[in-house]
Amino acid sequence: SMADTLTHLPELLCIFGTGDLGRSLGQRLLQTGYRVVYGSRRPHSCGPVPQGAQVRSHEAASQSARLVFICVHREHYDFLQTLAPQLKGKVLVDLSNNLKKDIYPEANAVYLQRLVPGAAVVKGLNTLSAWTLQNGPLAGKQVFLCGDSAEAKQAVSDVATRLSLSVVDRGSLSAARELEDFPLRLFPEWRLPLRVALGLTAFFFFYLLIRDVIYAYVEKGNDISFRIMVSLANKVFPIVSLIMLSLCYLPGVLASFFQLYRGTKYRCFPDWLDRWMLCRKQLGLVALGFAFLHAIYTFIIPIRYAVRHKLISLMKNNKSTPFDFDKTEAWATDSFYVMGILGFFLYVLLGLSSLPSVGSALSWREFTFIQSKLGHLTLVICTVHGYIYGWNKFLRPSTYKWWTPPGYMLCLVVPSIVLVLKLLLLLPCVDRTVTRIRQGWERTEPGEERDEIKATNL
Amino acid sequence: SMADTLTHLPELLCIFGTGDLGRSLGQRLLQTGYRVVYGSRRPHSCGPVPQGAQVRSHEAASQSARLVFICVHREHYDFLQTLAPQLKGKVLVDLSNNLKKDIYPEANAVYLQRLVPGAAVVKGLNTLSAWTLQNGPLAGKQVFLCGDSAEAKQAVSDVATRLSLSVVDRGSLSAARELEDFPLRLFPEWRLPLRVALGLTAFFFFYLLIRDVIYAYVEKGNDISFRIMVSLANKVFPIVSLIMLSLCYLPGVLASFFQLYRGTKYRCFPDWLDRWMLCRKQLGLVALGFAFLHAIYTFIIPIRYAVRHKLISLMKNNKSTPFDFDKTEAWATDSFYVMGILGFFLYVLLGLSSLPSVGSALSWREFTFIQSKLGHLTLVICTVHGYIYGWNKFLRPSTYKWWTPPGYMLCLVVPSIVLVLKLLLLLPCVDRTVTRIRQGWERTEPGEERDEIKATNL
Amino acid sequence: SMADTLTHLPELLCIFGTGDLGRSLGQRLLQTGYRVVYGSRRPHSCGPVPQGAQVRSHEAASQSARLVFICVHREHYDFLQTLAPQLKGKVLVDLSNNLKKDIYPEANAVYLQRLVPGAAVVKGLNTLSAWTLQNGPLAGKQVFLCGDSAEAKQAVSDVATRLSLSVVDRGSLSAARELEDFPLRLFPEWRLPLRVALGLTAFFFFYLLIRDVIYAYVEKGNDISFRIMVSLANKVFPIVSLIMLSLCYLPGVLASFFQLYRGTKYRCFPDWLDRWMLCRKQLGLVALGFAFLHAIYTFIIPIRYAVRHKLISLMKNNKSTPFDFDKTEAWATDSFYVMGILGFFLYVLLGLSSLPSVGSALSWREFTFIQSKLGHLTLVICTVHGYIYGWNKFLRPSTYKWWTPPGYMLCLVVPSIVLVLKLLLLLPCVDRTVTRIRQGWERTEPGEERDEIKATNL
Repeated sequence: SMADTLTHLPELLCIFGTGDLGRSLGQRLLQTGYRVVYGSRRPHSCGPVPQGAQVRSHEAASQSARLVFICVHREHYDFLQTLAPQLKGKVLVDLSNNLKKDIYPEANAVYLQRLVPGAAVVKGLNTLSAWTLQNGPLAGKQVFLCGDSAEAKQAVSDVATRLSLSVVDRGSLSAARELEDFPLRLFPEWRLPLRVALGLTAFFFFYLLIRDVIYAYVEKGNDISFRIMVSLANKVFPIVSLIMLSLCYLPGVLASFFQLYRGTKYRCFPDWLDRWMLCRKQLGLVALGFAFLHAIYTFIIPIRYAVRHKLISLMKNNKSTPFDFDKTEAWATDSFYVMGILGFFLYVLLGLSSLPSVGSALSWREFTFIQSKLGHLTLVICTVHGYIYGWNKFLRPSTYKWWTPPGYMLCLVVPSIVLVLKLLLLLPCVDRTVTRIRQGWERTEPGEERDEIKATNL
Repeated sequence: SMADTLTHLPELLCIFGTGDLGRSLGQRLLQTGYRVVYGSRRPHSCGPVPQGAQVRSHEAASQSARLVFICVHREHYDFLQTLAPQLKGKVLVDLSNNLKKDIYPEANAVYLQRLVPGAAVVKGLNTLSAWTLQNGPLAGKQVFLCGDSAEAKQAVSDVATRLSLSVVDRGSLSAARELEDFPLRLFPEWRLPLRVALGLTAFFFFYLLIRDVIYAYVEKGNDISFRIMVSLANKVFPIVSLIMLSLCYLPGVLASFFQLYRGTKYRCFPDWLDRWMLCRKQLGLVALGFAFLHAIYTFIIPIRYAVRHKLISLMKNNKSTPFDFDKTEAWATDSFYVMGILGFFLYVLLGLSSLPSVGSALSWREFTFIQSKLGHLTLVICTVHGYIYGWNKFLRPSTYKWWTPPGYMLCLVVPSIVLVLKLLLLLPCVDRTVTRIRQGWERTEPGEERDEIKATNL
Repeated sequence: SMADTLTHLPELLCIFGTGDLGRSLGQRLLQTGYRVVYGSRRPHSCGPVPQGAQVRSHEAASQSARLVFICVHREHYDFLQTLAPQLKGKVLVDLSNNLKKDIYPEANAVYLQRLVPGAAVVKGLNTLSAWTLQNGPLAGKQVFLCGDSAEAKQAVSDVATRLSLSVVDRGSLSAARELEDFPLRLFPEWRLPLRVALGLTAFFFFYLLIRDVIYAYVEKGNDISFRIMVSLANKVFPIVSLIMLSLCYLPGVLASFFQLYRGTKYRCFPDWLDRWMLCRKQLGLVALGFAFLHAIYTFIIPIRYAVRHKLISLMKNNKSTPFDFDKTEAWATDSFYVMGILGFFLYVLLGLSSLPSVGSALSWREFTFIQSKLGHLTLVICTVHGYIYGWNKFLRPSTYKWWTPPGYMLCLVVPSIVLVLKLLLLLPCVDRTVTRIRQGWERTEPGEERDEIKATNL
């Protein structure tokens, strides 16, 4: 087999198209040890190609290669129809993308297969941009393939693997449309969390605007609208952050109750719960963003004009008022700040552990420990931070302006519910049942013996 | 070879068990281009399997596959004994994990081998959870294999490589226990640093509690216990942070002295030094955590109740006291803050460079530059930060309450020692010897000529 | 083929040299499933080798292996000359590095090839240190190869791929020198940005030193040199940060204007623009560093001695001065802070998305969205932050000390230009042309029909 390898030349790959993508792909293939030939309409005036590659006519280029990479805009595919006889039996790799979704009735790759029915079309690698191929390390990047011929996919997969890419087969060519939409994705998993954040922010902004600014203006004739920029925002941010953090742990708790109620883990969750569970990471990161803003808004409090003015006028005017040191107040405010700081610290730890490269270095137990134990601890600390804020305020009638509860009270509702439900799940008897269900045990309904079968599987 | 590939079907793999893990594994294998068949006790009522996979009886499923993945709880392995004749010559991949360490006398894989002596058991891939197989990118994830048959391991390794996993062979099946403990690891390399941090924190907390709070209460009848939450904590954090940062650079310095003393790099370091060297990164990150807390505790100082109260009462009461602007004091406090800020900035840079994805993009020289040059610079700056803090305090008798030195003095001991030792190593004559030793040179003892041999090797 | 694999032993690889590198490499190769034999001058006294490896004389070791890894210092290569007959036809992998650049007239690998002309020398894997081979995950790490024999490179590449490395072929053995310089690189792509940052910092430091401190001393006899440490630095940092952020977006705008002017994307940019484009990421990260320092310097303002002194003396001395609350001032300063905070927040988001592991998880459209849309929004917000700072100052004659404009005015020049140019590019008619050019369209010059050809390629 040694002699065998030594006498063989590296495989020859053909690329149609000498644009940015074609040239970048060719260069990478050459660097990975393949030989590359370009197919071009005008082989003698097509501009520079990577050193070591040849340029020929389309016919000549495709003749001795088994794989042909199509790096041409879909609008210009028609020339391939005339090449159909030469391309028979070849593997055509369609790397094309569109500028928008749904501008053509059929996927580019399906159209290509129709033009060249004798070839095996494989859609794929289209998530790689010319820029990535030129500059980025490809190692570990995930690429997708689909196509109707398993052998053709295998051949393309072999090339992709040599490029250090991680290949995922998405099935038959009917998945091509889905693959062509991948590069056009714009944070799909972030949409729901961002909408929730936007909705909560808008609600609490107007709620507090009415309770604080408009109330002061209507009832006391006091224009404190200058507080909108910082004071009001710095009330909205922690509220939204805490609610979103609890929304990040609520679905896990709900899922456990679903499993407890149904007595099995083998029935699917409702659709809304599944979607909710899948965006927990994003919910948490958005919550971290709001907490970050809250922290910085807090740090700049003492340099604000309004705060410094208040401090100075306090001393100028009320010279006579005695101002005794209140030790309870000192303990309470310091505890309040300490809880906030510790909560923020844990928040940041959670955020760091959700970085792809950090998370993938954790063992399963470590990941569970951080996301569950540390996450719930963060929620507890942040909730306590909220409770301490209101500890001496909730009994004062002046807190309930226009008979409405203050913002911090509203924001403590969801986290408190999540924590109570979580505590219920931690009761030994409940915990034991949930653990058994998670290990595959099922509550036997009369006449069923399915649990025994299931429990054997990991 | 082209015709060869085109006529071959993808390899068929068999999975025993249709639980979460079995289904997730099957789906990944299908996506990677394999054919998958499930073995189940009741092929017709085993619940959903991934699209494209078949379900058969255990016997039928394993018949035409060479590799059988066992995704079944160890407690249910006994059915495999009855299948032993059919499984003869097959490769059995044991993916099982236990819920706790040491609950069985022998490793699951060893037990499996005993049940099916005719098969080649390979333990491995057990660090992959069902969740990772479903959601995560596998690319670059490290998995471990062990087994007594090199060919069987090679076959499993080929599948794992196709899944973009990075395979590490840990030797014979006797390593199975070790592999089964991997998913149960809970930050083993963080334990020592966290214990050191906890010990230091506890010591300095009580030390400062006695010196500050209890001293004030006993000697002056002053109850300043409210300072525990923020002021005291904000003294403990920087102290622990600086000590741990210096503990992170101490072992490197000690190692150099060991090599100097022994005149060779080819003798092993004592065990405690090896273990210490291996947790330097974690020591540094824990130190960064404490520095982060110190920074935030500092930022909120001016909004604390006690601080604002002091400021206001200062002005109300001591109206007559002249309060001259002291330029030296202004320079000193500003330098103190600047050193702290720069130190924290470098700390964060060091922390960022220890992220796996950042660190792996650095060349060897860049990594050395950051971890050694930048690291020691950080230590110098933070130590100077500590010295400036005490510049005008260390001569005042009031500093030595109850004849004890203040915390900042204690915390400067270790960093000062590390820096002095490091300076010694930077002396040209010492540096030259260390460099030569690092390149393989050995101080020749009479009658030895080993140095010559060694020096040739990289 | 199953029988085939089962009867074959794993490939035997030979390593010359039993130093750190040789031992670490051997251990990895053993873990990956290869058999390893070491070649040593004194096979019986060479110290410990990894378990499972054999040690023989150089001749005996290399006999049955096809690949020989040379883990020996270049200075000791001469013994290889005497082995030349035995090494004929072998693949020699040169992993050596030098301690400095250009200390030898020819690359180590070229020298090796000269010593053993009958062997196929491959330079490569030299970016892997012994430490990485022992501890790090290799998965996805990029390694480089070069050599004159394609078959030899293929053989080495196969081994590297089995080690999960990502291989890049850099061509013939004449590239060896370049490869040997890789481990000696020290942040080459950071040099230009750091020099720009240093230059800007020095210029603005002295400019503000003259305008603020020296001006006050010369004109008013006021020594405010204590302001250098914090106040002055906190003016320099935001200025440099904003200018560098705009320098990060200027080349993209310039490139668009070049393409507009030339009517094609197929002509290369001038060299300086290319180099500038390639360090945009580093420019942005350095700008983020300065912004980070600016933020922390701002947070500690209220605890500074000078600030607290000013606050207290303000109240002690000017007791009679009325100090009315100015709502416009309150709005302006709060808006100023809010813009700063939001700008910093977006800055951090941009920085996070430039982490390798985060960036590689983004689709092309997501990456473009963050780096272009979010990036320009950051620039807008930070520029507004600067404009608000000067909103009521730029008309006061006292602002122009010694007829010089203040620093914030100078620093707004470049960002304003970038934003105006970017706005011009967003005009529908201009935008349409740029988009067409980017898709490959060319403005037809008389007598040319090149555009048609180009436009077909991706």
